[in-house]
Amino acid sequence: MYRALRLIARPRRLFRAPGAASAPVSCGAAALPCRPPSAARMASQNSFRIEYDTFGELKVPNDKYYGAQTVRSTMNFKIGGVTERMPIPVIKAFGILKRAAAEVNQDYGLDPKIANAIMKAADEVAEGKLNEHFPLVVWQTGSGTQTNMNVNEVISNRAIEMLGGELGSKKPVHPNDHVNKSQSSNDTFPTAMHIAAAIEVHEVLLPGLQKLHDALDAKSKEFAQIIKIGRTHTQDAVPLTLGQEFSGYVQQVKYAMTRIQAAMPRIYELAAGGTAVGTGLNTRIGFAEKVAAKVAALTGLPFVTAPNKFEALAAHDALVELSGAMNTTACSLMKIANDIRFLGSGPRSGLGELILPENEPGSSIMPGKVNPTQCEAMTMVAAQVMGNHVAVTVGGSNGHFELNVFKPMMIKNVLHSARLLGDAAVSFTENCVVGIQANTERISKLMSESLMLVTALNPHIGKGF
Amino acid sequence: MYRALRLIARPRRLFRAPGAASAPVSCGAAALPCRPPSAARMASQNSFRIEYDTFGELKVPNDKYYGAQTVRSTMNFKIGGVTERMPIPVIKAFGILKRAAAEVNQDYGLDPKIANAIMKAADEVAEGKLNEHFPLVVWQTGSGTQTNMNVNEVISNRAIEMLGGELGSKKPVHPNDHVNKSQSSNDTFPTAMHIAAAIEVHEVLLPGLQKLHDALDAKSKEFAQIIKIGRTHTQDAVPLTLGQEFSGYVQQVKYAMTRIQAAMPRIYELAAGGTAVGTGLNTRIGFAEKVAAKVAALTGLPFVTAPNKFEALAAHDALVELSGAMNTTACSLMKIANDIRFLGSGPRSGLGELILPENEPGSSIMPGKVNPTQCEAMTMVAAQVMGNHVAVTVGGSNGHFELNVFKPMMIKNVLHSARLLGDAAVSFTENCVVGIQANTERISKLMSESLMLVTALNPHIGKGF
Amino acid sequence: MYRALRLIARPRRLFRAPGAASAPVSCGAAALPCRPPSAARMASQNSFRIEYDTFGELKVPNDKYYGAQTVRSTMNFKIGGVTERMPIPVIKAFGILKRAAAEVNQDYGLDPKIANAIMKAADEVAEGKLNEHFPLVVWQTGSGTQTNMNVNEVISNRAIEMLGGELGSKKPVHPNDHVNKSQSSNDTFPTAMHIAAAIEVHEVLLPGLQKLHDALDAKSKEFAQIIKIGRTHTQDAVPLTLGQEFSGYVQQVKYAMTRIQAAMPRIYELAAGGTAVGTGLNTRIGFAEKVAAKVAALTGLPFVTAPNKFEALAAHDALVELSGAMNTTACSLMKIANDIRFLGSGPRSGLGELILPENEPGSSIMPGKVNPTQCEAMTMVAAQVMGNHVAVTVGGSNGHFELNVFKPMMIKNVLHSARLLGDAAVSFTENCVVGIQANTERISKLMSESLMLVTALNPHIGKGF
Amino acid sequence: MYRALRLIARPRRLFRAPGAASAPVSCGAAALPCRPPSAARMASQNSFRIEYDTFGELKVPNDKYYGAQTVRSTMNFKIGGVTERMPIPVIKAFGILKRAAAEVNQDYGLDPKIANAIMKAADEVAEGKLNEHFPLVVWQTGSGTQTNMNVNEVISNRAIEMLGGELGSKKPVHPNDHVNKSQSSNDTFPTAMHIAAAIEVHEVLLPGLQKLHDALDAKSKEFAQIIKIGRTHTQDAVPLTLGQEFSGYVQQVKYAMTRIQAAMPRIYELAAGGTAVGTGLNTRIGFAEKVAAKVAALTGLPFVTAPNKFEALAAHDALVELSGAMNTTACSLMKIANDIRFLGSGPRSGLGELILPENEPGSSIMPGKVNPTQCEAMTMVAAQVMGNHVAVTVGGSNGHFELNVFKPMMIKNVLHSARLLGDAAVSFTENCVVGIQANTERISKLMSESLMLVTALNPHIGKGF
Repeated sequence: MYRALRLIARPRRLFRAPGAASAPVSCGAAALPCRPPSAARMASQNSFRIEYDTFGELKVPNDKYYGAQTVRSTMNFKIGGVTERMPIPVIKAFGILKRAAAEVNQDYGLDPKIANAIMKAADEVAEGKLNEHFPLVVWQTGSGTQTNMNVNEVISNRAIEMLGGELGSKKPVHPNDHVNKSQSSNDTFPTAMHIAAAIEVHEVLLPGLQKLHDALDAKSKEFAQIIKIGRTHTQDAVPLTLGQEFSGYVQQVKYAMTRIQAAMPRIYELAAGGTAVGTGLNTRIGFAEKVAAKVAALTGLPFVTAPNKFEALAAHDALVELSGAMNTTACSLMKIANDIRFLGSGPRSGLGELILPENEPGSSIMPGKVNPTQCEAMTMVAAQVMGNHVAVTVGGSNGHFELNVFKPMMIKNVLHSARLLGDAAVSFTENCVVGIQANTERISKLMSESLMLVTALNPHIGKGF
Repeated sequence: MYRALRLIARPRRLFRAPGAASAPVSCGAAALPCRPPSAARMASQNSFRIEYDTFGELKVPNDKYYGAQTVRSTMNFKIGGVTERMPIPVIKAFGILKRAAAEVNQDYGLDPKIANAIMKAADEVAEGKLNEHFPLVVWQTGSGTQTNMNVNEVISNRAIEMLGGELGSKKPVHPNDHVNKSQSSNDTFPTAMHIAAAIEVHEVLLPGLQKLHDALDAKSKEFAQIIKIGRTHTQDAVPLTLGQEFSGYVQQVKYAMTRIQAAMPRIYELAAGGTAVGTGLNTRIGFAEKVAAKVAALTGLPFVTAPNKFEALAAHDALVELSGAMNTTACSLMKIANDIRFLGSGPRSGLGELILPENEPGSSIMPGKVNPTQCEAMTMVAAQVMGNHVAVTVGGSNGHFELNVFKPMMIKNVLHSARLLGDAAVSFTENCVVGIQANTERISKLMSESLMLVTALNPHIGKGF
Repeated sequence: MYRALRLIARPRRLFRAPGAASAPVSCGAAALPCRPPSAARMASQNSFRIEYDTFGELKVPNDKYYGAQTVRSTMNFKIGGVTERMPIPVIKAFGILKRAAAEVNQDYGLDPKIANAIMKAADEVAEGKLNEHFPLVVWQTGSGTQTNMNVNEVISNRAIEMLGGELGSKKPVHPNDHVNKSQSSNDTFPTAMHIAAAIEVHEVLLPGLQKLHDALDAKSKEFAQIIKIGRTHTQDAVPLTLGQEFSGYVQQVKYAMTRIQAAMPRIYELAAGGTAVGTGLNTRIGFAEKVAAKVAALTGLPFVTAPNKFEALAAHDALVELSGAMNTTACSLMKIANDIRFLGSGPRSGLGELILPENEPGSSIMPGKVNPTQCEAMTMVAAQVMGNHVAVTVGGSNGHFELNVFKPMMIKNVLHSARLLGDAAVSFTENCVVGIQANTERISKLMSESLMLVTALNPHIGKGF
Repeated sequence: MYRALRLIARPRRLFRAPGAASAPVSCGAAALPCRPPSAARMASQNSFRIEYDTFGELKVPNDKYYGAQTVRSTMNFKIGGVTERMPIPVIKAFGILKRAAAEVNQDYGLDPKIANAIMKAADEVAEGKLNEHFPLVVWQTGSGTQTNMNVNEVISNRAIEMLGGELGSKKPVHPNDHVNKSQSSNDTFPTAMHIAAAIEVHEVLLPGLQKLHDALDAKSKEFAQIIKIGRTHTQDAVPLTLGQEFSGYVQQVKYAMTRIQAAMPRIYELAAGGTAVGTGLNTRIGFAEKVAAKVAALTGLPFVTAPNKFEALAAHDALVELSGAMNTTACSLMKIANDIRFLGSGPRSGLGELILPENEPGSSIMPGKVNPTQCEAMTMVAAQVMGNHVAVTVGGSNGHFELNVFKPMMIKNVLHSARLLGDAAVSFTENCVVGIQANTERISKLMSESLMLVTALNPHIGKGF
C-alpha cells in the first residue's frame, strides 16, 4: 500500500536493521561530529577496539574516547537521532564537576598524577573540545547514569592518553574508581543539571533579556513625547504616549529578570555528596561542601551544597521553578511581540503606528510590506517555552522514592527554554527593536480622528469605560 | 502580623471550626447564599423594579441590590451556570478596594455622608454579607468591567438603603460618580485580583502548607531512627532512615512556601490609580499611593502602588508567576502523596512500610485494605493546579495593547489553585500525615532481605549504581 | 434520534427559555438548590437522625436522603467548598445507570417491588430533582467511590420513603445489596463518567457548535460578494472576499464537530459489568451487555459494553481523547474570536472592517466604542479548555494497575470544557455572530489604498510573498 | 563577578561578534554537515561565491546549493544552534512537493528540460541526499517562507548544476519562476507540513505502536493462565490474570492507533493551490487537485486537496488534532510503562511480579538490581509529548487573519512527538516487553497471602469496595 514510500526511505532504518547483537556501527554515520580534534593520533573511523562489560564484548570506535558502557547505551536507546543528544551544556557542566571532584579527591589523597590528568581532561570536556565523544541521547535511563558513565569513560581515556596509556585499559586512570570517586550518577547528574542551568541562565538568558530591556528602555525614552491613542479591548480608548506604552514592556522584561533571579538560589544548590540515595554513603565528610566551593570558584557562580540531599535527588522542584520563571517570561515576550507586530501592521490596512525594520527582501508584489518576522520567531519561541514547561512539570511531578527519573528530559527542556529565550531576545533586539521607528504622521492622524469622537473627557471619567 | 485580616474573616473557616463530628449543613453558611440578610426589608423574590440603561428598561429583582448593568450582563453571558460565578474572594477584595477608595475620595472632598455610607456598604461586601447579589459569571467581558459595575451598583444601592433612599434611584449615592470615583474598571479589576490573590495566599495557601510542613517535620523526627531500604529507579538501593526520607518532603514543602513568598512582591503591587489605560487620567495626584496604603492597612498585607501602571493593566505576569509557584508546589505535593501511597500500599502485596490512617470504612471483602484516599484527593488537586496554570499562562500571554482581557479567567484559576492546594494540604495533614505510622516490622524485614544481597558495600561505592 | 434524552431534560435550559428580557432569578431554579422539593415531608434543617457506619455514629440531616457514608466523606474532604461539588451531570448519569441496573437486576430476579422503587428514585436523580442531596466534592477518593455511595444512599432512602419505610433503615431497599447490586464503584463511576460526557456533548457542545456553524455559514454567504484586502503576517496581502474569510471559520467549526464525533465511539463504551478490577466477578453473564443496552435505550445514544473492562477501569484514555478534541475546538474558536475582534477594532484607530453588535452600553466618553465582549468571553473559555485539557492529561497518565484514581477530577474537567464551549458558542452566536455587519465603506477604502501599492499582480506571482 | 565563566565561553558567541553586516562566515563552523556528497565538484569550504538580494551582496559558500535568501536568514535568526534546524522530514516533504509541482507545471507547459531537472533535484532532496544544504532554524519567519526559499534555491542550483550551468546564476532554472511556479510559501509550507506529518506517522509512529501492540498481545496470551492479585488504589484487591492485566495495555495501544488514524483524514488535506491567501490567485484551475494526486502517487498515502484553502493556511487545527491523538497515546504509554516498572520493582523490597530484561550491567553493589531503564525512557518521552502538545496548542490558537504564523514551531513539535513515540515504542518493545517474564513464584505467594485475608468473596460483592 505504501510502496511509494521507499522513495523517502530513512537511513536510520538501515541503522536499526543490523540487530541489537551487533556493535554500534552506526555511531559513526549517525553522529554529529566528523573530525575529532585528536583524529590524527587515532586510527581511522572504520577501525574499532574491543572492550568488555559484564555482558560481553563490544566494538568501540578507535577514534572515540568513550567506552563499553556508552556503546551499550547507543544500542539500547535508538530514540530520536542525533538532534536528541544530551545537550552540550550538560556535558560541559559535567566537565566542571569532574574537575572539581578531582581537586577535592586529591585533597583527600588521590594520587596527584591521576588527579591532575583527570583535571586536564575534564577541562577539555568543560571547554567543549570533546563534544563529539558524547553520542548518548536524552531518552536513556531517567537518572542520566549512562551519561555520567560516558563522561567517566571519556575523561578516563583522555587522561590515560595524556599519561601515555592505552585507551580502554582503564589504567592508570579508572573511570569509576578515579573519575567517579566519591560520586554516584544519582548525585552527579543533578549536580550537572544545576550547573548547566545556572550557566545557561547567566550566559545566555539574562544577557539576552538585559539587552532587550535596554533597547526597549531606550525606545521608551525616545518615544516619550509621542502622544497616541490608547487601545483597550483592542478598541480606541484614551491617549497615552508611545513611550509610556513601551515602558510597560520595559517593566515586563525587568521583572522577567527579577523572576529568573528569584529562582536561582535553589538552582545554586548542588546535590554532589549525596551519592546513591542522599545519605552520602562512602563519601568523606566535607566532600559535598568542598565540591560545591570548587564549582563556585570555577564558574564564578554562588553554588553551595544542597541543605537536604534527599530532596536534591528525589525531586527537581528547582528546575520546575526555574522553568516557571521562564514560562512567565515567555508570556511577557509574547505580549510584547504581539503588540509590536500589530502596531506595525500595514502598510495601508493595518494600525501602522510603528515602522519595523526590514530584514529580508519584501514582497515583490506588495512594496512596503515588511513582515514582522522577528516577532514571529519570538512568539514561536514563547509557545515552545510554554510547552517545555509542561514537560518539565510532568517530569517533576512523577518522581518516586529516592530518585526522580525524568532528569535528562527535564534538563533538556530547561536548557532549551533558556537558550531559545536568550537567543530570541538578542535576535529580536538587534533585528527589530533597535530599528523600530514611530510613524508619527499616522499616529497623529489616528489620534486626532479618535479624539474628535470624545465629546468631553473630564467630567465623565469614572463612568467605567 | 496580619491582624487586619479579621476584617475579612471567612465564613467557611467557621464552617470548619465546629469540628469533624458535625454533619454538613450543606445549604447553610457554606452554600451559595439563599436568603439575603436584608430579605425582610425587601419585596418577595417574584417582584421586580424597573431600571434603565441606555438600551432600554430592565426588570431588576426587588430583593437584589444590583442594577441594570448587572442584569444586562446576565442576559448576555449565559455561560456555565452558577458554579461559574465570579469567585467570592474577588467580590470581597472589591469590597476592600471600594472602602479604601471611599476613604481616599473623602480626603479629596467627597461628601462624608456619602463616603461613610459607601464604606459601610463596602465593608459588608468585604465581609461576604452580600454574596448573593453578585450573580455574574467569570465568562463575561475580559476586563471584568461588569463585575466592577455589579459592585458599584450593589454598594450604591446598599448605601442608598442605609441612607433611607430608594433602590435604583442612584441618589444620593451614585454607582459611577461616587462608588467608582477616580476609578475605572481597568484599574479596579486588576487591583481586586491582586488583593484577592494575596489574601487567599495568606489565609488559605500558606497556612495550609505550613500545617503540612510541620506535620511532616514531626514525622521526620519521629522516624529518625528507623533504618529502611532506599529505592532508586523504584528498585532496592542502599539504606537511609525513614526520617531522612520524610526530611526530603519537609524540604519540598518548606521551599514551596519560599517560592510562593518569592512571587508575592509583584502581587502586592496594585493597579489602582491607573484608570483607563494606565495614565491615571482624571485621578488626583497621590490617589494611587493613598489607596494602596489604605488597602495595606485594611488587610495587613504590604500592598504598594504599582510602579508602572501600563504594565499593571496590560499584562498579568504577576499572576502567571504566582501560578507558576503553585504549579511547582503541585509537583512537590504530587511527589509526596505518590510516595506515601506507594509506601503504604498493601496490606499484603504492596510495599507496606507505612500504615496510613483509616478514614472511611474499609472494603467489606478485604479487611485491612485502607485506600489512600487523601493521597488521591491531593494528587487530583495537583493535576488540577497544573491545568489551571496552563489556562493562566495562555491568558497571560494573550493581552493586547493597553489591556489584558483574560482577567476574570486568570484570577479564577489562580484563586482555584490557591484554595485547592491550601485546603488539600490541611485535609491531607489532618486525615493522613499526622496519623501515619511506620510498619517497623515490615521495614526491618525488607531491609534485611535486601542487604543480604549486598555483598560488600564499602569498596564498591563509586561504581555508578 | 435522541428522543429518549427528554428523560434528562436540563432545568437550565428552561432557565434560558423565558427570553433575554427577564432578570436572573439567581437563587431560584438555576441556583445550587436551597429548598428541597420534598422539604414539606421532612423535618427542619436543624434536626438530625443518627446513622452508623463501622466507625461509629454520625448525624445525618433529617431533610437529606443521603446517609452515613456521605456524611463521613464531607468530614474527611473539606476541599474547595460548594462550587467544587461533583458536577450535576455525573449525578444525573448515575441516576440513569442505577435505573438501568435495577431493570436488569429485576430481569435477574430482584424483587420487582424493590426494583420498581429504585427505578422511580433513580429517575428523580436523573431528572435533577434531588440535586441538593449530593454534597460531596470532586476532591474525594480518586475512584469516586463516595459519590457512588452517595447515590446508593439517596436512591435507597428515596425508594424507602416511597415504600413507606424509615429513612436510614436500609429496609426494604438496601443501598449496597439492592441499589448497587452487581456493581462496584470501580465500574459504576467510569460508566457514569461516560454517560455524563456523552450527554453533555450531545446536549450542549454539539448543538452549540452547530448553531455557531450555521450562523457563520450564513454570514459567509451574506458576505460572498464583498472583496477585501487579505492579511498575512498581519500585513496587507492580496484580496479575497469577506465570505471566503468566513468560510475558513465555517470549515473550522465543521471540523470541530467532526473531531468531537470521532472521539465518541470510545466514550460510548461503558465499564459497567467489570465490577472491582474488570473481571466482572460476581456479576451475571450478560449483565454488562444488558446494562449498556438499557442505558442506550434511556438516552438514545449508542452505548455499548466496553470490549475490555480492564482498560475501562484502569485507564481513561477515552476522556483524554475527547478532551483533546475539545482542545482543538478551543484553538479554532480562539482563532475565530481573535479575528473577529481585530477585524471589528476601532472605531477610528482599528481595522474597522466589521461592525460588531453592541450588547452593553458603550463607553460614556467614547461614543461608538463597542467592546468585543463576546469575543473576550470566548477566548477566555478557550484558554480554560486548554488548561482543563492538561489537567485531564496529567490525570489520565497517572493511573496505576487496575484502577485510575483521578476519575472525579478528569470528568469534572471534561464536563467543564464541554459546557463552557457549548454555552460560549451559543452566546457568541446569538450576541455577536448573527449581528455582525460588514463595514463595506471601510473595506473598500482599505482595499483600494492597498491595491494602489501593488504594481502588477499577474507576472510576479510565485515570487514567494 | 562571573570572570570564571570564560572557562566555558561558548563558540557561538564568537559567531555573533562579527556583526550583522558581515557575511555568514559561521554557516560553515556552526553547520552540522561537514563533507558534502558533491564536495569533489565544488570548491573548498573556505571559498565563497557572491550572490545578491535586494539588500546587497552576500557571500555564499561555494560548496552549498543554497543562495542569498538562505544566507540572509542565517544572519537574521541566530536562535538555538544546529539542533534547532528545520526537521529533515519537512525538507524531504518539500522535495516530494516540488517534484509533484514540477510534474504538474510541465503538464501546464513548463519546459520539459527544466521540469525534468527540477524533478531530479527534488528527488535528491526527498531522498535526504542534500540535507546539509538546509541550515535554517525553526525559529525564523512563522510562515516558513525562508525554508521554502531555501528549498527553491537548492533545487534550482542542483538542477542548474545537472544542466551544466553556473551556481547562483538562476539560469536556466530559476528558484522562483520555475521551482516555485504556481506556488507560494503560504501554501507550500503547510503542504510540506502535512506530507511530513503523514509520512512520519506511517513510517515511524504507527509501525512502532503496532510492534508494541503485538508484543504486548503476545505477552497477554502467554500470561493468560497466571492468576494474580489485582490492585486498586495501589492496594490489594480481587484477583485477575496477568494476561488480563496485559490485555488492558493491548487495548490501550490498539486504540492509540485508532485515534491516530482518526486524525489522519484532515492531515491528508493539502493546502497546495491556495497560494498567498487561499484564493489560488494565479494558479491554474486544477493545479491544486493535480498536485495532491501526484503527492498521493509519490507517497502512497491518500492525500487530497483541502476543500477550503482559507482554513488550510490560516489555521492548523489538523496538527493540533494529531498532536492531541499523540498526547492521548503518551498517556497510555506512560500508564503502561509505570505499571511495568512497579510490577517489576525489587528485587527484594518491591512488588516483584515481573522480571524485566537486564540490558545494562546491573549495580555492582546490588546484584539482581535491574533498573527499568526502558520504562524510564518511555515515560520521559511521554512527558515530552505532553509538553510538545501544549506548544502546538498555543501555536494553533494564535493564528491571525489569512495566515497562521506558528508553522515551523508546530510541525517541529508534531514531528518530534511522532518520532519519539515511534522510536520509544520500538525500543521499549525490543529491549523490555519481549523479554518480560512472570515471576510466578512471587505472584503465587502474594496471591495466597492476600486471599487469606478475604473472608468470603461471594455474598459480599456489591458492597462498594
